[in-house]
Amino acid sequence: MSGMRMSPNLALNQLVAERQAAGEPIVHLGFGESRLPAFAPLVERLAAGARRNAYGPVAGSPGVRAAVAGYFDRRRLPTGPDQIVVAPGSKPLLMAVGLTVPGDLLLPRPAWNTYAPQARLAGKHPIAVPIPEECGGVPDPALLREHIRAARTLGHDPRVMVLTLPDNPTGTLAPPAMIRELCAIAEEEDLLIVSDEIYRDVVHDPDTPYLSPAEVAPDRTVVCTGLSKSLALGGWRIGAARFPAGPWGEWIRSGVASVASEIWSTLPGPMQEVAEYAFGEPEEIRERLRVSARLHGAVAREVHRIVVGAGARCRPPTGAFYVYPDFEPVREELDKHDVTDSASLSRRMLDLGAAVLAGHLLGDEPGALRFKCATSMLYGENAEQQEMSLAAENPVALPHVRSVLDRIEASFQRLL
Amino acid sequence: MSGMRMSPNLALNQLVAERQAAGEPIVHLGFGESRLPAFAPLVERLAAGARRNAYGPVAGSPGVRAAVAGYFDRRRLPTGPDQIVVAPGSKPLLMAVGLTVPGDLLLPRPAWNTYAPQARLAGKHPIAVPIPEECGGVPDPALLREHIRAARTLGHDPRVMVLTLPDNPTGTLAPPAMIRELCAIAEEEDLLIVSDEIYRDVVHDPDTPYLSPAEVAPDRTVVCTGLSKSLALGGWRIGAARFPAGPWGEWIRSGVASVASEIWSTLPGPMQEVAEYAFGEPEEIRERLRVSARLHGAVAREVHRIVVGAGARCRPPTGAFYVYPDFEPVREELDKHDVTDSASLSRRMLDLGAAVLAGHLLGDEPGALRFKCATSMLYGENAEQQEMSLAAENPVALPHVRSVLDRIEASFQRLL
Repeated sequence: MSGMRMSPNLALNQLVAERQAAGEPIVHLGFGESRLPAFAPLVERLAAGARRNAYGPVAGSPGVRAAVAGYFDRRRLPTGPDQIVVAPGSKPLLMAVGLTVPGDLLLPRPAWNTYAPQARLAGKHPIAVPIPEECGGVPDPALLREHIRAARTLGHDPRVMVLTLPDNPTGTLAPPAMIRELCAIAEEEDLLIVSDEIYRDVVHDPDTPYLSPAEVAPDRTVVCTGLSKSLALGGWRIGAARFPAGPWGEWIRSGVASVASEIWSTLPGPMQEVAEYAFGEPEEIRERLRVSARLHGAVAREVHRIVVGAGARCRPPTGAFYVYPDFEPVREELDKHDVTDSASLSRRMLDLGAAVLAGHLLGDEPGALRFKCATSMLYGENAEQQEMSLAAENPVALPHVRSVLDRIEASFQRLL
Repeated sequence: MSGMRMSPNLALNQLVAERQAAGEPIVHLGFGESRLPAFAPLVERLAAGARRNAYGPVAGSPGVRAAVAGYFDRRRLPTGPDQIVVAPGSKPLLMAVGLTVPGDLLLPRPAWNTYAPQARLAGKHPIAVPIPEECGGVPDPALLREHIRAARTLGHDPRVMVLTLPDNPTGTLAPPAMIRELCAIAEEEDLLIVSDEIYRDVVHDPDTPYLSPAEVAPDRTVVCTGLSKSLALGGWRIGAARFPAGPWGEWIRSGVASVASEIWSTLPGPMQEVAEYAFGEPEEIRERLRVSARLHGAVAREVHRIVVGAGARCRPPTGAFYVYPDFEPVREELDKHDVTDSASLSRRMLDLGAAVLAGHLLGDEPGALRFKCATSMLYGENAEQQEMSLAAENPVALPHVRSVLDRIEASFQRLL
């Protein structure tokens, strides 16, 4: 394995934690964690699951798999429990798919910083295709075929395409028409689609049309999800995957279960108890999801307003909790501060008191003036403030949210 | 990835669970799970850790790493917290070491069934070296050099050697002199030693001398451990690794942390809370470890008596909860029942009502008449019986333990 380093978002998170602990007043916009308290009924389920100290089935107990199947059923994806595997996060599931399915990986540029290193660990070549003007999370359909042809010319073998719906890092959601177009290309080129839908329940406006590629290309789409983002359980590590019905899907699912059995055995029993409850989506969970998405949207829109005010162009966020500004329009002004690329831009942002994740760490062009702002750690310093933020119709008006947004705005105003 | 199948011990476990659920009276000797209740103070810590829903540091929080370092300190291995990585089980840590360190893998024959598949997933060739007469868990030092030379002749590149101390599947512990001999070979041949010490606290007689290769070859030994076996927490998935001090160790540790950041992010926060408490080893944990090892030893010795009585030769168990009988002495009698190899032998055992894990599934010679009996699920049908077993000075005299041992004995008596 060459060029090993820690996943850059986690590395930045540790750096910021250390600097903050040392007293530096840094606003942390570099880490996609939904910093909210664990919802009380989830805590109860964790404690209730403590008795599950025996190894359970590798793919998950029948109960949790049925609950996850139901979750997908309610999202227009009829699903049997045998199509489901749960795991300690969606990361290991994505890795196991990569270890199971042959061929190289097509991914959007920029993309979440773990897809490419995982591909390399699995012996795959990552092939980055620029995202369209309209949204992130998908390769531009107008460029995809030529990138596939070019990769083949170079001896690569693109067989898997990753979509992120909604997207990390751009906070946008590819529209249904584009999903259909990508599915058609996947059919023509015989690609497996891995649809990372971990932010699906963090679409800001519940009326936004959502189309999963698993609805369009059911035989060739694996869907991954988890509770880290929608229910703020990153530290509990609960993920799930849905495999296609039919022989190809079953072949992939059994390969993933095989990898699971050799690498992580099973999702911890107490976490299976939590997952069974949460994916079952009783009323209180649906309400928690609703208010969480409202909060994420309100704050992301506000940060979007700030970055646009500072001179960036930026896609308006519609899902997840990110904005991805592009400071190309003010390149000349930035040049006066020796800011010429994504690395120097993110360093300057840190000097101005805002930790952001440089675009090149997400596979983007190093020369571009882009970075990711995660907007999900701005909801308060403690559980009480964070619960207030969740409860508020207009959270950005709360003093504890407003003050951190003001600090961010002040940092951006000093950029040029 | 070719020849994918589920890890055979987990697959057998699921098969037996299904048959038992269907009413078949099978005694399950095929799965290395310590079937005991979660110790109450551990359950309390899990609940207390529920608030840890944020992503923590990849390698583990400072508190849990300090606790694990202390655990090793108390075992003659001076350790700093920076040498420690915790993870959801020791399996992912072993996998991450394999993905980090180049070269092929030397392992004992037979060995725990996950080493070889993990090696293949990491692009390594597994090189199995027969165990010595005296014990399992180690390559026979008298054969090791010639196997290394032969592997090199074939173009392989043996660079890592796995030791299991005490051993799964033989339930034995390599003596200090043999560890020294193996460490000397590792020095000569420049091998990294991966010492799997997950059963270290399940040595039956506390006076048994225990020598870790990390004491003899500190710069070249990675130690893995976990709470699955010693504290019956297989379903909670808590593992830890100790890396050597110095530059090579730090290079491996940072590589493992990098892999961790891409595959599993971190040990779930509530489990870190549990691990910090348990590896801290307060008095009640030490007592729990003591009575658990006593119980495991008493029942393993009894199953050893049974298999020897049925005509096998078998190393007396001294650690973990396994016996590994060899029915070669009665090959002719078994032949009359069409039992000619490890597969047909294990099938016959299942027909006789005892699920065992065939030796060839552990890398052993398919023609040998050997299998693994895990003896750790014989302690009772419910938590009350299991706690009685733990409390008993002589657990094999308890009616609920005696009756299952009698059923096992009856199965073996019908073998010939």
